[in-house]
Amino acid sequence: MAAQSSSAVFSGGYAFSAGRSGDPCSDPKRVGSICLRSHLPRRLSLSNCKARGTISLRIRAISKPDDTENFQPELDVSLSPRVDSLKPSKTMAISDQAATLVQAGVPVIPLAAGEPDFDTPAVISEAGITAIREGHTRYTLNAGTTELREAICRKLKEENGLSYAPNQILVSNGAKQSIIQAVLAVCSPGDEVIIPAPYWVSYPEMARLADATPVVIPTRISDNFLLDPKDLESKLTDKSRLLILCSPSNPTGAVYPRKLLEDIARIVAKHPRLLVISDEIYEHIIYAPATHTSFASLPGMYERTLTINGFSKAFAMTGWRLGYIAGPKHFVAACSKLQGQLTSGASSISQKAGLAALGMGKAGGETVAKMVEAYRERRDFLVKSLGELEGVKICDPRGAFYLFVDFSSYYGAEAEGFGVINNSESLCLYFLDKAQVAMVPGDAFGDDSCIRISYATSLNNLQAAVERIKKALLPLRATASVHP
Amino acid sequence: MAAQSSSAVFSGGYAFSAGRSGDPCSDPKRVGSICLRSHLPRRLSLSNCKARGTISLRIRAISKPDDTENFQPELDVSLSPRVDSLKPSKTMAISDQAATLVQAGVPVIPLAAGEPDFDTPAVISEAGITAIREGHTRYTLNAGTTELREAICRKLKEENGLSYAPNQILVSNGAKQSIIQAVLAVCSPGDEVIIPAPYWVSYPEMARLADATPVVIPTRISDNFLLDPKDLESKLTDKSRLLILCSPSNPTGAVYPRKLLEDIARIVAKHPRLLVISDEIYEHIIYAPATHTSFASLPGMYERTLTINGFSKAFAMTGWRLGYIAGPKHFVAACSKLQGQLTSGASSISQKAGLAALGMGKAGGETVAKMVEAYRERRDFLVKSLGELEGVKICDPRGAFYLFVDFSSYYGAEAEGFGVINNSESLCLYFLDKAQVAMVPGDAFGDDSCIRISYATSLNNLQAAVERIKKALLPLRATASVHP
Repeated sequence: MAAQSSSAVFSGGYAFSAGRSGDPCSDPKRVGSICLRSHLPRRLSLSNCKARGTISLRIRAISKPDDTENFQPELDVSLSPRVDSLKPSKTMAISDQAATLVQAGVPVIPLAAGEPDFDTPAVISEAGITAIREGHTRYTLNAGTTELREAICRKLKEENGLSYAPNQILVSNGAKQSIIQAVLAVCSPGDEVIIPAPYWVSYPEMARLADATPVVIPTRISDNFLLDPKDLESKLTDKSRLLILCSPSNPTGAVYPRKLLEDIARIVAKHPRLLVISDEIYEHIIYAPATHTSFASLPGMYERTLTINGFSKAFAMTGWRLGYIAGPKHFVAACSKLQGQLTSGASSISQKAGLAALGMGKAGGETVAKMVEAYRERRDFLVKSLGELEGVKICDPRGAFYLFVDFSSYYGAEAEGFGVINNSESLCLYFLDKAQVAMVPGDAFGDDSCIRISYATSLNNLQAAVERIKKALLPLRATASVHP
Repeated sequence: MAAQSSSAVFSGGYAFSAGRSGDPCSDPKRVGSICLRSHLPRRLSLSNCKARGTISLRIRAISKPDDTENFQPELDVSLSPRVDSLKPSKTMAISDQAATLVQAGVPVIPLAAGEPDFDTPAVISEAGITAIREGHTRYTLNAGTTELREAICRKLKEENGLSYAPNQILVSNGAKQSIIQAVLAVCSPGDEVIIPAPYWVSYPEMARLADATPVVIPTRISDNFLLDPKDLESKLTDKSRLLILCSPSNPTGAVYPRKLLEDIARIVAKHPRLLVISDEIYEHIIYAPATHTSFASLPGMYERTLTINGFSKAFAMTGWRLGYIAGPKHFVAACSKLQGQLTSGASSISQKAGLAALGMGKAGGETVAKMVEAYRERRDFLVKSLGELEGVKICDPRGAFYLFVDFSSYYGAEAEGFGVINNSESLCLYFLDKAQVAMVPGDAFGDDSCIRISYATSLNNLQAAVERIKKALLPLRATASVHP
């Protein structure tokens, strides 16, 4: 059993615990490696037993209070429907799981995290340090410092062709907050939120949190996971309040060409209630000749579009928690009002650091260009080497640092000592167990045929991961209906 | 008119703009001082005109979109009911207003902010700097780093007599987030949230955001603004889901004695649906012989109590955005799930800084003790000097850094060139205009007879402020029904 003192609750709904105890490992055959017992789909249990003490890791889904013994018998422990219906963030659960395994000494190759492997550029870090030294450690304005919002306006003007005033910008504790606030601000109960799939895990949950209904529109790997305007048109109703676009896309790496966005904009323009959230957080991580188009810059879309961006991805600033929204003043003011009650302003230190990031030149200048070049090299390697694998389908990712790979021809296979692999979740668990490679099931992104592979890790790691994946797939061939 | 390029939206519902222009001041008589035009209650307009260029400041309430000219005529710009019904945070609006005036060169004495005037202690700042240098700039676990949660557990054990495991702690971007998540997690539509008044401005709005009904229980200045258990008992129904206690209190400085909390606990224990949020953010700012009691430590209350705390107040870390909740695992897991979709974890840098803060010794050690001693000196000065003013009632504040002062005997007075002062908001505007002292109307805290004075500023400032207040009150005497 894990030691209670070092257990932790993760991203809601998943409880992890890790600790050392003197208890003998219950499965001595597996000493020194991962012993993974999967009671799919709702109960995961991992333990890694080492000589000289035991490291045990348990991961299990919580659906009911499991410390009922602590409650007074009569106490009402019900939760609000909004929490009960909320799914935990699967990406976070699985990257947390991989991190915990690594911490416990298991040589997992982590391809699950949505986080650059690069350090925050020095000029940004130094700005953070200077902010602390100079005492910029107090509340900022709820909307963010004026200097940062002014710098964001200049960036949007120069890089995106968008004219905003500082009172049209709201700086938040990460782009995630920017998005949820926008959804909460504009959606009334019963409204529909249109979400092309594969989608970023949080979009449908955010719609539910706003008492709105997520309306998912599937896309096809053969279309590079780009939304077909006809599919969009067929799903729009009087209830459609929001369309959420993400380009470059997490999880697919798809980059929407301007022409396609123009087609989408023409459809949007016909619907007076329809607003658009354009999530552009991966904007700078894009591979020429692909180019980024801000949806708000298209004819008639400025008044309808809430542009989301932030510092985490391009500037390797995930831990600083800094994102922003830009849009019509009326909507941004509503988001600001919400933020005033949810968190108030973002970290004063991070805001100074963000200002330095925007001073690094267009699209982050040379420093970001070097990171993007590294991502491109990794992408090229993965596209080539995974593309050669039998029964594996890939698309043509042109941005972000993800591949969304279709492994579904391996579903139905049976692995010795593991059981049947029948979906993306069991295949990911199989890869984690057999290959010690952590990836995220496509199911989390609304497409169970695929797995998301993050290449925000070294080329060496990626080469090793591909070898391991290749090896792990081999024994599945016999029982799977893989067609070359 | 203000320059568009430097205008900003604040804390929702209030739009500020500040800028220089060559336009002549429209009220040349007031050049060099504040000219304040109050169109109460919903329209505030300030401008400060200086020689050699004009600084103008405008503050106005937004209730409707005011840039409709930018919208396509047919576009539906409605907001969700949750935002429409949400009041902006008045404390933030007014402290923002004071900050903007100061920035523009107006010598305002700011007694409005809920923020220590001290710098973050050096040992904490150095920990933040080290965190940046060592590359702790990535996502942490959603719940917060294990080391920080373990340190929080030790703090709660040693200082509060509360035993929690790290999976019962959730670290957030400030205590405000900790509270709203708890309210969202446990309140279902129609539930009642019991809030003693005067209350922290955000509590009722948070209840509304959760589709719950705030039930306000007034307290009396003659009771030091402490909740009368009989009043509590009379308000509890089957719908009562949450009681929000705040001790030491913002805005009153009241500290709940253990005996009173025990009486409250006995009443709470009779109601199986009633949970308690105990907001203990001002815990360390307390003046002996007053002592702090954690509500969760009372018999039977552990299972029902969600304890809120954070680093902003005692450790002068407002800009770092770091707070936490501790409570039964079941409820904390629900809050964690929400946080996973709202923002994910807090700043990695701030978490390292928070760890250093908890290492400073019991209750923050000598460094915090010195700050508390300074607050006490200021409190003593204010209690004495304001207590001597005719027609002014004060209570006996034993914690936090606020006085909640009853000026209501001045209501009804008429000030030359200003108009009738008929409530806490108009009196605060009068003080800002006449005395250039910024304070927050009690109305924001649910008690219109009072004004909140923050003494998180130097004794010199406080002495000057009292002189100015005294002078500003004099001309009101003639028309007010002030009784000595």
